[in-house]
Amino acid sequence: MRTQVAIIGAGPSGLLLGQLLHRYGIDAVILERKDPDYVLSRIRAGVLEQGLVGLLDEAGVGARLHQEGLVHDGFEIAFSGKRHRIDLAGTTGGKHVTVYGQTEVTRDLMEARKAAGLTTVYDAADVSLHDFDGDTPKVRWVKDGVTHELACDFIAGCDGFHGVSRQSVAGAVQSFERVYPFGWLGVLSDTPPVSHELIYVNHERGFALCSMRSTQRSRYYVQCPLSDDVAQWSDDRFWDELKHRLDPEAADKLVTGASIEKSIAPLRSFVAEPMRFGRLFLAGDAAHIVPPTGAKGLNLAASDVYYLSRALREFYGEHSKAGIDAYSADALRRVWKAERFSWWMTSMLHRFPDSDAFSQRIQTAELDYLISSQAAITSLAENYVGLPY
Amino acid sequence: MRTQVAIIGAGPSGLLLGQLLHRYGIDAVILERKDPDYVLSRIRAGVLEQGLVGLLDEAGVGARLHQEGLVHDGFEIAFSGKRHRIDLAGTTGGKHVTVYGQTEVTRDLMEARKAAGLTTVYDAADVSLHDFDGDTPKVRWVKDGVTHELACDFIAGCDGFHGVSRQSVAGAVQSFERVYPFGWLGVLSDTPPVSHELIYVNHERGFALCSMRSTQRSRYYVQCPLSDDVAQWSDDRFWDELKHRLDPEAADKLVTGASIEKSIAPLRSFVAEPMRFGRLFLAGDAAHIVPPTGAKGLNLAASDVYYLSRALREFYGEHSKAGIDAYSADALRRVWKAERFSWWMTSMLHRFPDSDAFSQRIQTAELDYLISSQAAITSLAENYVGLPY
Repeated sequence: MRTQVAIIGAGPSGLLLGQLLHRYGIDAVILERKDPDYVLSRIRAGVLEQGLVGLLDEAGVGARLHQEGLVHDGFEIAFSGKRHRIDLAGTTGGKHVTVYGQTEVTRDLMEARKAAGLTTVYDAADVSLHDFDGDTPKVRWVKDGVTHELACDFIAGCDGFHGVSRQSVAGAVQSFERVYPFGWLGVLSDTPPVSHELIYVNHERGFALCSMRSTQRSRYYVQCPLSDDVAQWSDDRFWDELKHRLDPEAADKLVTGASIEKSIAPLRSFVAEPMRFGRLFLAGDAAHIVPPTGAKGLNLAASDVYYLSRALREFYGEHSKAGIDAYSADALRRVWKAERFSWWMTSMLHRFPDSDAFSQRIQTAELDYLISSQAAITSLAENYVGLPY
Repeated sequence: MRTQVAIIGAGPSGLLLGQLLHRYGIDAVILERKDPDYVLSRIRAGVLEQGLVGLLDEAGVGARLHQEGLVHDGFEIAFSGKRHRIDLAGTTGGKHVTVYGQTEVTRDLMEARKAAGLTTVYDAADVSLHDFDGDTPKVRWVKDGVTHELACDFIAGCDGFHGVSRQSVAGAVQSFERVYPFGWLGVLSDTPPVSHELIYVNHERGFALCSMRSTQRSRYYVQCPLSDDVAQWSDDRFWDELKHRLDPEAADKLVTGASIEKSIAPLRSFVAEPMRFGRLFLAGDAAHIVPPTGAKGLNLAASDVYYLSRALREFYGEHSKAGIDAYSADALRRVWKAERFSWWMTSMLHRFPDSDAFSQRIQTAELDYLISSQAAITSLAENYVGLPY
C-alpha cells in the first residue's frame, strides 16, 4: 500500500488536512486508532476564527457551518459584578468568530471524506512510524490481527497530545509546559444560552464561562479545584455555583436544566519544538496544547494545517522544499503568539490558589485598564478573532 | 505656629504640592528631615509625562524645563539582537515625554519656593504627626534641640517610602508588595548618549537601559544580581557588560567615560491602601513604589499631587469635601494602572533567575507580538506617555 501523505489521526486537524490535500490533487490516507463514533463523541470547543472558516470553505465543507453557525461580533468580560462588552467587529475592521461545535466540524469533514471516497482506516492499532528521517517513510499498524504497511512521501502527525507521532521523536523534542492549579468543570445542557454572546467571568469564587453550541444548547464552565470529582457536582450544585459567579441580571436570566454531559478538564500549556523531523510533521494537539480560555485549541490546529497544506502543495506542485523547510518556524511563530494569548487570558480571568495580594490587585488593575483602553481592547480582539496566518 | 496644610517632605512631590497650593492661595509649610544639598544629591529618574509637565507649568516652574528638557517622540525596545522603535507620538495623537532630570525638577521647585518667600523647614528631626483623625491636626519636630509644633487643617505625607507619614498609620494600612530578584546597576557619565532616544534591552545576559539626562550626560543601567556590590563593578567591567547587551551597531557607537555616579538599586512594587486617613493624605513614594522600568515613579507622585491639590482647592475655594473624600480612590485607581504597567514592563524586559523554559518563550512571544501589533504598541505607548488623570 502506498500514498503520498500518511495522516495519523482522524480528528479535525487530520481530516481538514486530508480534505485540503484532496483538493490539491495530493493522495492521503488517514489512520485512526479509534472508531468514528468515538471520534464524534469527544466534546470540544466551538469558537471558530475566520481563518479556520476560510479553510473549511476551501475544503468544501463550509455549507452547514454557514447555515447553522452563530456569527459573534463580540463577547463580554465580567468582573467586580459588572459586564463589559468587547466589540470584536468594531475594533478589527469587521472581523468576527463563528460559534459551531468542533464535533460538527469533524462530522462535516468525515462526511465529505466519505462522499469523496477517500481512505480512512479506523481501529488501526499499534500504529508505528518508520524511516521518516530518510526519503521513504513507512507507517505500520495492526487491524483485525493483521499487520499493514503504508509507504509514503510524508507523515503528518495529527494524532493529538497522547498520540504516537510525538512519542516517535520524544528524544529529539524540546518541551515547554505549564500546568495550571485548577480545572474547568463543564456542563452541556439543552437550554437556551443565558446571553446571545459568550460571557467570561472573573469572580472571587473563580472563573466562569457562559458559552453555547446553538441557540438551544448551552455550554457552561466553572473553575474548580483539580482534586474535585465530577461525582461531587450534582446538576443543582453546578447551577448554584454558576449563578453565584454571574452578575444578578445574568443569574436571573439563567435557564437551568438537566446536564447532558458533565466533565472536569485540567488546563495545560504545552509546546513541542521543533514541529518537523525530516519527513514527519507534527500538527495540532500533537505539537501543542493551550488552556481553553480564549478558544485557541482548534484554531491553532487549523493554522498548522494551513502552513502544512501549503508546504505540501508547493512541494508537489512546484517541486519546492521551501515551505517544508519553513514549516516548523512558521507554525511555531503563530503557535507561541496563541500560547501567549491563552496564557494571558487564563492568568487574567482565573483565581490562582497561590496568588498573593499584590498579584490579585494587578489582575484587577489589568481588567480595569483593559476595559478603559481602546488600544487594549483592540489588542485583545485581534488575538481573539485570530492573528493573520 | 499655624498653617493650612503641613507638607511632610521637601522632595519633588511635597515641593510641587506646595507650589500649586501657593498658586491657589492656600498656605503650606514644608518640613524636611534632611538639608537642601542632600535632597538635591539624590539621583533619580528623568522621564516626565506631559501631565507632570503641565503641573510644573501651572506651578510656574516650567521655563528651564522647556528650554533644556529633551522632547522624546519615541523610544526603542531591543531583543534577539534587533531594535524596534515605539512611536509614541504617532500612536497617541502627538503625545510625548520630556527627558529632564528629577534633580533639576526639584531644583526649579526649590528656587521658586525660595523666590516666593515660602517656609520650608530643613533639618527637622523627630517629626511626628498628631490628631489627624480629628479636625485639628498637629505636626511636631525638633530643630536645634527645640521642639516645635505646627497646627494645621491637613497633613500631606510626601516623605517617601521610609518617611514618618505612612509609619504613623502603620496599623491601618494594607500593604501590597512584590520584590524582584535582581537590581539595576546604574552609571551616570558625562558622555553623549549612544542614541537620541532611550533603548530598553531584553538580552540573555539581562536587561539594560540606555537613558540620558542631557545631550552630554548619559545614564546607563544593567540588570545585576541583588547580591552584587558596586565595588565589584569597575567602570571597565560596566562598559564591557553594557556592550555585550547592546546590538552591534549600538555597542559600536557607545562612548564610554569615567562614571560620575555608580549605584545598585533594588526593584520593588509597593502600594499602601488607603491613601487618606482622616486629615492625613499620603502622596508619592510614601504610598507607593514602582520598579523603574517605564519611568513611572515621579510621574505617579505628580498624579497624586494633581488629585490632592484639586481636592484642597475645592475644600478651601468651594467648601466642598467631595475631592477630599474621593482622593484615595481616585489616586489609587491611577496608581494601580501604573503599577500594572511597571510590573508588566519589568516582567517583559528582565531575565528572572527562577524563570522556566515556558516563561522564557512566553516573554519572547510577548515581545514578538508587541512589535507586530499596532494595537499592542498603542497600548504600551499610551501608558508610557501617561494615562489621563
